[in-house]
Amino acid sequence: MQISELSDRSGLTVQTIKFYIREGLLPKGSAVSATRSEYDERHLERLRLINALRDIGDLPVAAIQQIIASVDDPSVGLHELFGTTQYAIGPHVERPDDPHWRAAREDVDALVRELGWKVGGGAPARDLLAHSFVALRRLGFPITLTDLRPYVRAATEVAEHELRRVSDDAPRTRTVHSLLVSTVLYEQVLTALHRLAQEDASARRFGA
Amino acid sequence: MQISELSDRSGLTVQTIKFYIREGLLPKGSAVSATRSEYDERHLERLRLINALRDIGDLPVAAIQQIIASVDDPSVGLHELFGTTQYAIGPHVERPDDPHWRAAREDVDALVRELGWKVGGGAPARDLLAHSFVALRRLGFPITLTDLRPYVRAATEVAEHELRRVSDDAPRTRTVHSLLVSTVLYEQVLTALHRLAQEDASARRFGA
Repeated sequence: MQISELSDRSGLTVQTIKFYIREGLLPKGSAVSATRSEYDERHLERLRLINALRDIGDLPVAAIQQIIASVDDPSVGLHELFGTTQYAIGPHVERPDDPHWRAAREDVDALVRELGWKVGGGAPARDLLAHSFVALRRLGFPITLTDLRPYVRAATEVAEHELRRVSDDAPRTRTVHSLLVSTVLYEQVLTALHRLAQEDASARRFGA
Repeated sequence: MQISELSDRSGLTVQTIKFYIREGLLPKGSAVSATRSEYDERHLERLRLINALRDIGDLPVAAIQQIIASVDDPSVGLHELFGTTQYAIGPHVERPDDPHWRAAREDVDALVRELGWKVGGGAPARDLLAHSFVALRRLGFPITLTDLRPYVRAATEVAEHELRRVSDDAPRTRTVHSLLVSTVLYEQVLTALHRLAQEDASARRFGA
């Protein structure tokens, strides 16, 4: 297809597509004349991924370049590719250098060890969890491992389901796209369902 | 205690405390002289709730007034008090008047009926879920009831645990405070745990 059709089908302007090509995010089309290039479905799939990384992941071009480079490098395994994507998404919370923060972060590390989870020491989610621990303590709701158990179980079930959903032989572009969607959009789904389930549980416990 | 001690213990300035009294959010202290009032632990607890509603719930004063009025009105049952708080927190997403939105919102309503959940028709979480459905469809990841099942199960388990944690005879101020914390902060906890569990599941499936 020509760039105009690629623009129509992706919903991105020709200018944006050319910008992505210049930045190395999208491979050039194959030249069919001095002024015309042909694009195919892989270009479209790639554009959709870039768009999702910008839109849902809210990622800067540099982070997208890094993810795309990993997608294109067959020596990068799927686990590493997932890590690159997930760590780029963040969220990257502040890490204040105070005793409360350090204590909370140590608690997170102890929890991950106790659960036997294989998680990198630099995972942004460790900081995110520590951030919640600090806020809960400050508000007089210190968290214990017992409080956490139902959340750990829920998170584990959902994550295992999501990883089972990944097919081994799908194109890597699609795999990263689907991980991004699980991480960001299905988290929104989980939040919305949690609030609906809370209302239902409250109706059943305290009467509507 | 005097207002200066209330300020110290709550971490709020005397000016902020006086503003809350003027807005009817905090009851006046009992006058012990023409220029001095006494405050007690209930004032402190109330201040902590107001602060949490502003800080974590990001609520405007009018919404806080409405919640505080329900807390103070013993004819408002706990279920209704929960609803008032949860609906105030939102998030209130846009409801575009287009066919995609309407179809997604109908799917949400059908899902809630099918699950037999007792949830008000105006629950903001219905809109939030419809919003995610629209985004998933737009990105080429249409959602089915089978996809949703693990999320529904996880949300239900967590919500039931949270409602069990609410004690019947705790002061209502504390109960609302704890619901707010469950809704906002434990959702952050769940998000962080979800990402850690994803990394672990990926390590186990695709090798570290």
